[in-house]
Amino acid sequence: MLNIRNRVETFRSYLERGGMDAAVIMLPDHQYYLTGFKALIYSRPIFLIINKERSTLVVPGLEELHAGKSAHVEEVKVYYEHPEESQTQHMSLVESVVKGNAKGSTIGLDFANAPTSLYRALTYWGYQVKDVGQELVRMRYVKEEEEIALMKKAGELVNLALETSLKACVENVSELEVDAKGNAALYAKASRDYPGSTLDTIVMSPSGKERTILPHVFSNTRRFQIGDGVIHSRQVALNGFRAELERTIFIGKPNDEQQKMFDLATTAQKMALDFIKPGVSASEVDQVARNVFQKAGVADYAVHRTGHGLGISAHEEPYIRFDNDLLLEEGMVFCIEPGIYIPGIGGFRHSDTVVLRKNGAELITHYPTAIDSLTFA
Amino acid sequence: MLNIRNRVETFRSYLERGGMDAAVIMLPDHQYYLTGFKALIYSRPIFLIINKERSTLVVPGLEELHAGKSAHVEEVKVYYEHPEESQTQHMSLVESVVKGNAKGSTIGLDFANAPTSLYRALTYWGYQVKDVGQELVRMRYVKEEEEIALMKKAGELVNLALETSLKACVENVSELEVDAKGNAALYAKASRDYPGSTLDTIVMSPSGKERTILPHVFSNTRRFQIGDGVIHSRQVALNGFRAELERTIFIGKPNDEQQKMFDLATTAQKMALDFIKPGVSASEVDQVARNVFQKAGVADYAVHRTGHGLGISAHEEPYIRFDNDLLLEEGMVFCIEPGIYIPGIGGFRHSDTVVLRKNGAELITHYPTAIDSLTFA
Repeated sequence: MLNIRNRVETFRSYLERGGMDAAVIMLPDHQYYLTGFKALIYSRPIFLIINKERSTLVVPGLEELHAGKSAHVEEVKVYYEHPEESQTQHMSLVESVVKGNAKGSTIGLDFANAPTSLYRALTYWGYQVKDVGQELVRMRYVKEEEEIALMKKAGELVNLALETSLKACVENVSELEVDAKGNAALYAKASRDYPGSTLDTIVMSPSGKERTILPHVFSNTRRFQIGDGVIHSRQVALNGFRAELERTIFIGKPNDEQQKMFDLATTAQKMALDFIKPGVSASEVDQVARNVFQKAGVADYAVHRTGHGLGISAHEEPYIRFDNDLLLEEGMVFCIEPGIYIPGIGGFRHSDTVVLRKNGAELITHYPTAIDSLTFA
Repeated sequence: MLNIRNRVETFRSYLERGGMDAAVIMLPDHQYYLTGFKALIYSRPIFLIINKERSTLVVPGLEELHAGKSAHVEEVKVYYEHPEESQTQHMSLVESVVKGNAKGSTIGLDFANAPTSLYRALTYWGYQVKDVGQELVRMRYVKEEEEIALMKKAGELVNLALETSLKACVENVSELEVDAKGNAALYAKASRDYPGSTLDTIVMSPSGKERTILPHVFSNTRRFQIGDGVIHSRQVALNGFRAELERTIFIGKPNDEQQKMFDLATTAQKMALDFIKPGVSASEVDQVARNVFQKAGVADYAVHRTGHGLGISAHEEPYIRFDNDLLLEEGMVFCIEPGIYIPGIGGFRHSDTVVLRKNGAELITHYPTAIDSLTFA
């Protein structure tokens, strides 16, 4: 389905141009991109080693069958944790794979993510080490049509989950209960429509003045009260590819201050969504949203970037940030989510996911932003 | 609530004994242990720097209020991503904090987790760097009574969630739907009983011959069929502290092969639970469970350790592994979960969480393991 072979070939050419004989990759999302394999938990380390001839995945015993089934690699090597097997040390296994390359040669490593212990081991084994992190990040900028198709389906699922959760928003229901309602609808729908698929979901619903000003917090057991703002925020990943949708809502009629800040966040998002297209820079998109806050004198409260790339990772580059002059391209996918967070009043943010097409942006998430559609009681 | 001050003092003494002036810690779970602060997502890096006088947390702008509210540190330093602020580069902020220490002095780093880029930066800035990872791991071995109290409450919640999910196990329901049922009950109960608390949950329910032999996979949309085994597996974290409970169940009456393997997994777990206590070694506990599989000639299919420590992390040391001779101590908490995974027959594993007390093990999770209690249709 996904063009893993092409991706690996592209990466191999990069290694060759950079004079590298191999690379060792540990970031789970990069591994997924280059192999199609994802583990549930990484307390036992997993290594992907790509050289000129083959991709080798080094996995613990309990992932042997899983990797054999789902990893698009030439070779799975296994370390065990039971005495019936002789290979029980992951680093000696990695060493044996890497030592297929001559001592003194150069190995690529993702410096921003590879642990210090791996870097030191490669150095100790006599290799030169070179950073390949930015290349892996760049390779993932532009999405393939197959990926976009999955993200659009994820978009439909996140629409459904958000709509279901919002319907549950009344006085006295808790953040966690609201989250659970949307998840149940999501899991039922996906079970009907996408047999054999995996689903991953991130959801949070901080509520009230004190909690909505914290852009990223786990939902808790707080119950909604009349007068609350709530930022209901969701991502859904279908077979590893994501869509994001977030709305700021009110329990009971918002007051004038809430309405004013809501309007600013809504306008800033609409301006950025209308503006974004191939050929503009990330910083320009950020500035279009930021203008709205600056003119209203609340830019100090707009404490995060206007958006981020989306794909395999919950947040990924390119970032829509004031100091990122990268020109955007067709096939990139972004979440656009300018926000303001004002102590004593609350936080305000909507997010939608867009695919950049030749002539503009295609929204793949849908829910109204009109305040009447977002007021519940 | 938690003895963060004591923990930091213990760690400071360790740094001093090792001739280190400071340490930089990036692993989220170590940061939580030493500050009480946890972010929802770490796509913007967060650094904890502990020196002789103070703990400094370096956070992105959108975590400033959150960290100010929940981090037990002397100092929160902030880097931003909007042009109204001058400090917008995290590494230069980390550099300014670290440079409070004389060039040439020694800084501690968790080599197994700290990224290569941080290690290289410290070296480049002129510091010696020394591994402190094992000390942080060791400090978290024995749980404080306040932590155990939270884990017992998490145990009650995971009992409820598992029981609710198992009641939903019938032919034609999907793995994801079963997971959602238990989650909804969990979220409702926690919202009633633990106001202001956060909840985190991991759940999977691989079903059928092909999927139960994969010990760790995301639940998917597969629907249960008569004859399936299912491994329903759950963790719940209440305010960051966890309990784990897992049961192997059957949809319809198991056949003889299933029954035989189920009995082995059940016996292995019971033997290990009866044996584990302070003063025995991790490897002895592993061997007690493993004996059962070895005698039955299926040890090659017992592809993972008998258990792991539990606390802040989903898996943490000490590991109950054949080659770990560590002597267990009062106050340690473990998941005991020997498993076998046989192609053509299926996977079989129960897990329970135990606290080591002076005279033995206190179970904090509860559900019968009798096969009749675990057969549904």
